[in-house]
Parts: sequence; structure tokens; C-alpha cells
Amino acid sequence: MQMTAFFQVNPELPEVDFLLGSKSPRRRELLSMLDIDAEIVHIGADEEFPSDLTLRDVAQYLAEKKSNAYGGDLTGKILITSDTTVLLEDQILNKPQDMNEAKAMLRELSGKNHFVNTGVCLRTASGISSFSDLTIVTFKELSESEIDYYVNTYKPFDKAGGYGIQEWIGAAGVVGIEGCYYNVMGLPTQKLYSELCDFIRRYFQ
Amino acid sequence: MQMTAFFQVNPELPEVDFLLGSKSPRRRELLSMLDIDAEIVHIGADEEFPSDLTLRDVAQYLAEKKSNAYGGDLTGKILITSDTTVLLEDQILNKPQDMNEAKAMLRELSGKNHFVNTGVCLRTASGISSFSDLTIVTFKELSESEIDYYVNTYKPFDKAGGYGIQEWIGAAGVVGIEGCYYNVMGLPTQKLYSELCDFIRRYFQ
Repeated sequence: MQMTAFFQVNPELPEVDFLLGSKSPRRRELLSMLDIDAEIVHIGADEEFPSDLTLRDVAQYLAEKKSNAYGGDLTGKILITSDTTVLLEDQILNKPQDMNEAKAMLRELSGKNHFVNTGVCLRTASGISSFSDLTIVTFKELSESEIDYYVNTYKPFDKAGGYGIQEWIGAAGVVGIEGCYYNVMGLPTQKLYSELCDFIRRYFQ
Repeated sequence: MQMTAFFQVNPELPEVDFLLGSKSPRRRELLSMLDIDAEIVHIGADEEFPSDLTLRDVAQYLAEKKSNAYGGDLTGKILITSDTTVLLEDQILNKPQDMNEAKAMLRELSGKNHFVNTGVCLRTASGISSFSDLTIVTFKELSESEIDYYVNTYKPFDKAGGYGIQEWIGAAGVVGIEGCYYNVMGLPTQKLYSELCDFIRRYFQ
């Protein structure tokens, strides 16, 4: 069998299998950018969290919650779960329910900085590890016609905060970011890559 | 004729045609992310610059030089030209000539910050305007095996600095950036979008 690229690059690590507990096509794409092949597994977990949790800890909490909801055998395997939250001032912006809510979110993000926080949990049979990464995103002042065009054309209903940075609004409306770009899309790829190496060293060697 | 998306979003602007003076497939991609249709034109200009030019001014100088090398009629049209430079300490990293040079560049970038500066020039029959945008990119410490894998697999010979941020090395090796992500790929899309609006207001209204 052909060794997957991740283990070609890190020949000192023993080979393990990866599972990705996510329905997001963007997360699959980001994992394949890392040249990691993962089997997609379905996990049913709600997205409730304790009301006294600090907002910046929610993403990591939900990544762990998804991980713990998976009951399969993880011998020789690593399960990757994650959650992305968009934080504006003292609130979390979820996925918009409809056109009006998506437009209202973009009006709130317009001309301001916000945070995108992605929590990731790695779990195998003998151990668990989790972390999160934060990226600051700055939007220009968006006109009503720009907001209408984006929401009507791109229908960002599956995206926390009502936008995808890899779409028109990211190219035309985002002045700059501070941190990992791919984190805004759904996975902190660089941190994930390094943490996977450490995790395999710790639990499989 | 269907109005192109750029003019749907900015209905107060008169319609003009766009020309892109670049062979880079990535720049075409970035323009289409902005929902701008541009005709590709071939411009032959060398990349020489005066030796006393400040390194941060080189990209804008070369964008203007490419613009001025185009002799076609620009009535009712805007020509977009650009140049991207990768700056590490007091040197410019060009496109690597071969495997060894690409690997040497990545060894230099490893574990450090560098600058990516893209200069853009907009020109029509009655006026010209140019600007540049700078993004800071931070690489983690790259291992020899990571450098070998990337260069052997992705062959980054058409990329200044010897890497593409949208490839494996960008996902696995870039800790973070400060500024516009698309600027690192070859066009400061947000700034370009705003400058195009201003340019059309100034020269076509």
C-alpha cells in the first residue's frame, strides 16, 4: 500500500488512520490541502454549551463534545473534530437562518474587526488533546448593495457569521486578517499539522 | 447584454471594460473571485529596475513599467498590471531557477517573517494610478524533509520566493499572516476592488 503523504513527510512517525467527524466540505478540502486522507464519520451532537462558559472557549468545548459523542473503536486511529465560532464584541454569530439574518450579520460586521475561533479535538483509544486558534478579520465598510449582492448570490446559510472568506466578500470586503487564513475557513491547518505530529509521537510511539 | 457583476454591485458607476496584463493563472482566478471579467492581454516588459530603488517600491515600479509597455488603445477600458515581490530582510527573492534554488529559498524563509508586496497599476486613455499592498507572512521552522517534499511535489518554479501560500506549504508551514491573504497569491483583491471604484469615478464620470 502507498504511504500517505503525511507519513512520507514525517517518516519517523508510525502510520495511523485519520477520521474526520465533520459534514463540512470545506474542512475536507482543508485536510486534503495538508495531503491527509481521512475517512468521514457522522457524529450526532447538539451545539449546546454551558451559559457560564467564556465565549472564546466555546469552539474548543464543542469540538470536545463532538469527539466524545463518537462511540466507534479508535485503536490505531485518530478522530479529528472541530467547531468554528465567529465572535463579534460580546456575542457569537451563528449560521444565519435566512436572507434577512445573513444581511443583518454582515451589517454588524461591516467596518469592524471580529474574531474567528476554531477549536479542534484529537482523540485516539488511549488519549485526547484539544486546542484552538484565533484569527482577527477586518471588514471594510460594506454598502447595502454589496451586502445584497453577496447574500443573494452566495446564500451563505451554512456559514457561521454569514460569510465565507474564500468567496467574493472575502476578496472584495476583507481588508486584512491577523493569524491563520485557513482557520477562518474552518481548520487551523498549520496548528493542526503540528499538533497531529505531537499527538502521534505521544500516543503511538 | 448582461451587466457584469462588478457593475451590478456598483450601479452608480458607468460600465467599462477590463484588461489584465498578466500570464499568471492565479491572478485571473483572483479577478474572477471579484466577479470581474477581464480580457487577458500579453505585455512584453523586462523586470529590470533602477539599482537605487527602495526594495519596497520595486513591485509598484514594475507594475507601472508593464502598464507603460502596453501600446493598445485604452478608450473606455482599464488596463490592470501588477507585480509581486517577496522581501526577506534586505533582499528580493525571485522565482527559483531549479530544485536547489527553491529549497535554498525555503531554508531562508524557515522560522522567520517575510514581506510579500504586490504593486498594481490601473491605466486608461486619460489617466493612470498605482498603489501597492504589503502582507507579512510567518513560516514555522521547516524540516529538510518538509522542504524536500514540498519542492519535489509542487515544483514552485513559477512562484516568487519559491512557494505558493495556497498549496501544502501554506497550509502546513505558514503560522499566520498579517494583511491581505490574496495579496500573497498575487493581487491585493480588497484594495484593488476599492481602487477600481475610485478610478472609474475619477476618469469615467
